[in-house]
Amino acid sequence: MTSSLPLEDRGLAYGDGLFETVLLNDGQPRLWDEHLARLVRGCHALGIPMPAEHDLAAPLAEAPRGLAVLKLVVTRGSGGRGYCPPRDPEPRLAWQVSAFSPAVDAWRQGVRVRHCRLRLGIQPLLAGIKHLGRLENVLARAEWSDPQVAEGLVCDSDGVLVEATAMNLFWQRDGRLETPCLDRCGVAGTLRAALLERLAIDEVAAKPEALLDAEAVWVGNSVQGVWPLVRLDDSDGHMLASWRLGKMHRALQAEAQALLGYPLAEH
Amino acid sequence: MTSSLPLEDRGLAYGDGLFETVLLNDGQPRLWDEHLARLVRGCHALGIPMPAEHDLAAPLAEAPRGLAVLKLVVTRGSGGRGYCPPRDPEPRLAWQVSAFSPAVDAWRQGVRVRHCRLRLGIQPLLAGIKHLGRLENVLARAEWSDPQVAEGLVCDSDGVLVEATAMNLFWQRDGRLETPCLDRCGVAGTLRAALLERLAIDEVAAKPEALLDAEAVWVGNSVQGVWPLVRLDDSDGHMLASWRLGKMHRALQAEAQALLGYPLAEH
Repeated sequence: MTSSLPLEDRGLAYGDGLFETVLLNDGQPRLWDEHLARLVRGCHALGIPMPAEHDLAAPLAEAPRGLAVLKLVVTRGSGGRGYCPPRDPEPRLAWQVSAFSPAVDAWRQGVRVRHCRLRLGIQPLLAGIKHLGRLENVLARAEWSDPQVAEGLVCDSDGVLVEATAMNLFWQRDGRLETPCLDRCGVAGTLRAALLERLAIDEVAAKPEALLDAEAVWVGNSVQGVWPLVRLDDSDGHMLASWRLGKMHRALQAEAQALLGYPLAEH
Repeated sequence: MTSSLPLEDRGLAYGDGLFETVLLNDGQPRLWDEHLARLVRGCHALGIPMPAEHDLAAPLAEAPRGLAVLKLVVTRGSGGRGYCPPRDPEPRLAWQVSAFSPAVDAWRQGVRVRHCRLRLGIQPLLAGIKHLGRLENVLARAEWSDPQVAEGLVCDSDGVLVEATAMNLFWQRDGRLETPCLDRCGVAGTLRAALLERLAIDEVAAKPEALLDAEAVWVGNSVQGVWPLVRLDDSDGHMLASWRLGKMHRALQAEAQALLGYPLAEH
């Protein structure tokens, strides 16, 4: 475990690694099994040996009381010739724990979200995993600076809805819960995985117009929980749709809050 | 300048940065203007302030005699909130110099190259620049381990030829030189830029079949120079085409060798 990495580390050189961002409460990780499961999938996709669970859990002992976020980084380590990975990689594990407060107002009052102009490249070999090459997310997030806008939605290069810049996307249409299928790009969030286990949510390929017919729309991740949308803007800031928060919005949210140990967001 | 980077550096966290790999001969950089020009384009694309040329050139004073490779890394530095970049980034500059010997046999005898299965995602916002998120190149290069195969060719998700894993691609058809257009993905190499300045080379969108009709095919970059292909395999290792090296192969190569200060590769 280390807090700095040498310049020749392949994580820095090529984004050749993975990370997880884990919510901690008094040192107890939330959705730990889901985080480990995604890391296993990522290591398999990249051909990096999975670190021992014992080593991944070591930082938990040093976590502060209260809420915190643990960032775990696993890289392929050093070596290889240029892009060619070493035959027997020695992965490097690094971590950082930071105090954390969730955006409580966003739970209660809902958020305004916009569409991003950036379209994600389609790469099935990297879809779903949380690898270190996240420049598309950075560029999408850099599209706006208005603090009133909480998140941005991104489509793939075919114009199909994928996710928000740092969250997954969910909506309800005709009474059914739906979320984008993530087999071509995007990050399969751990909260999303846990919600798919517990609720009837269909994974679909949908165009942005689907949201205009939705009775409710949410974005969420394993650190912030689930935020209901009260307003959706296009990429120029013009309003496309708005929602009044009601009981329907609170159902998915309540499930997420329970998974993360957060209080219910009352209407 | 530093040889290690903190874990919170955005280059490591998100691939939020750029690099250049520069050939040095007795401390003199080759294609320095082309490297700086690509770095300027990359900084502009990512919204990172361009480091001062004086700082970028500082490592040259520490280069050894003879041939070496300077790797320059520019990251957006630390800060920001998650993917959201800081308003006033303070870029971090890191570098490493390594002794280098080019693959002389590959100049003279030509190389065997294969097609990769991986297809590059289409992302015009990142096309051409040399950003730190190079997992696609790593996975493409990991497709083969046979040392007889010198490079692998990659297409984009539409099946259009783009590049080799760490080199650009050139061919001659009906007496005309061509190279893939790199406005949707791929890295625009500095040797490629210099050759485009000096020779009549068309930038085209071509399918892999174009290579079967080619009179000559080459791969090249600013460190290794230009390698003529003597054999092209499919991604299962079956031969698709072969070429006998002749005068025609040496023309493009001679131009590249001169640009890099390498001796002519005689037939």
